[in-house]
Amino acid sequence: MSGTKSAPNLQDAVALLTRTPAAFDALLLGLQETWTERDEGENTWTVREVIGHLIHGERTDWVPRARMILEFGETRPFEKFDREGHQREIRGKSLEQLLDEFARARSENLEALRAFNLRPEDLDRRGRHPALGVVTLSQLLATWAAHDLTHLHQVARIMAHQSREAVGPWNAYLGVMHCVGHGA
Amino acid sequence: MSGTKSAPNLQDAVALLTRTPAAFDALLLGLQETWTERDEGENTWTVREVIGHLIHGERTDWVPRARMILEFGETRPFEKFDREGHQREIRGKSLEQLLDEFARARSENLEALRAFNLRPEDLDRRGRHPALGVVTLSQLLATWAAHDLTHLHQVARIMAHQSREAVGPWNAYLGVMHCVGHGA
Repeated sequence: MSGTKSAPNLQDAVALLTRTPAAFDALLLGLQETWTERDEGENTWTVREVIGHLIHGERTDWVPRARMILEFGETRPFEKFDREGHQREIRGKSLEQLLDEFARARSENLEALRAFNLRPEDLDRRGRHPALGVVTLSQLLATWAAHDLTHLHQVARIMAHQSREAVGPWNAYLGVMHCVGHGA
Repeated sequence: MSGTKSAPNLQDAVALLTRTPAAFDALLLGLQETWTERDEGENTWTVREVIGHLIHGERTDWVPRARMILEFGETRPFEKFDREGHQREIRGKSLEQLLDEFARARSENLEALRAFNLRPEDLDRRGRHPALGVVTLSQLLATWAAHDLTHLHQVARIMAHQSREAVGPWNAYLGVMHCVGHGA
């Protein structure tokens, strides 16, 4: 099946973006803090912080940047994304509240995306990333979806980390236990 | 929050095991084959194959091995797990059918686990893994849950892989794109 190599298109990305909040809900709602309030050690995030980061992305990253591309093209760089911005999002909020906020923000952003009424040729429009330079709208929207996946991947790893000793010798067989995060 | 270091206990593991099928459903049901029928290259799995592997584990690994520990202790090694066993599970079946099968098999196995009526001291009972040697029931049950996480981690990675070019220069920022699987 891997012979057909066309990448996920905008419709595929939207299908994934639509599902992510429900997937996190199904995995995390009501789960013990043993899984959701522990991190992987110094300078790493808990699951709750990851959800806060996803909310922060909804507010400041994807749709605002798409709007920048459509309005200003390459003439103005995007605002720099604040990788600590989630700290404000999560203060005093339960994981359940954050999951609800994420679902609501995502739904509003997908509505905003539909309202752009993008034509296929719009996907080639270019913007300017403050560090990466010229990027296209198509790349931005593909990254929005892939960013969900990188954090789903991270959440699975954070949770698995909590069991690294409890699994005993099976630790050697579980790939996730040997993932070091690959952060950029 | 990471100061408290007690590992997930049996109740925590069961809570996760209960949620995994619904999490995969929420993520994958109705999603395009661009995401679910592609692999990561030679000798790697598609998402559909991963779900088949999870079903195969439900049928031949976790609860059957727990039963072996309770009945035979260390005197008989577990059956070797067939890492290609999913090929029989998935033949001719849609992803939707497989997700339903996984949910049903998991639910039956959690019912079987409850029916064992395990006392805390039972968790220290020992069995014999054909390669790893002596393991405890507690380690087996923790691994059952962590195994869900290693495959959730893998599914996120397989899916992200399909967008590795579409994301353009953002590839460098997405940890999941740089995960190499850490298979044992």
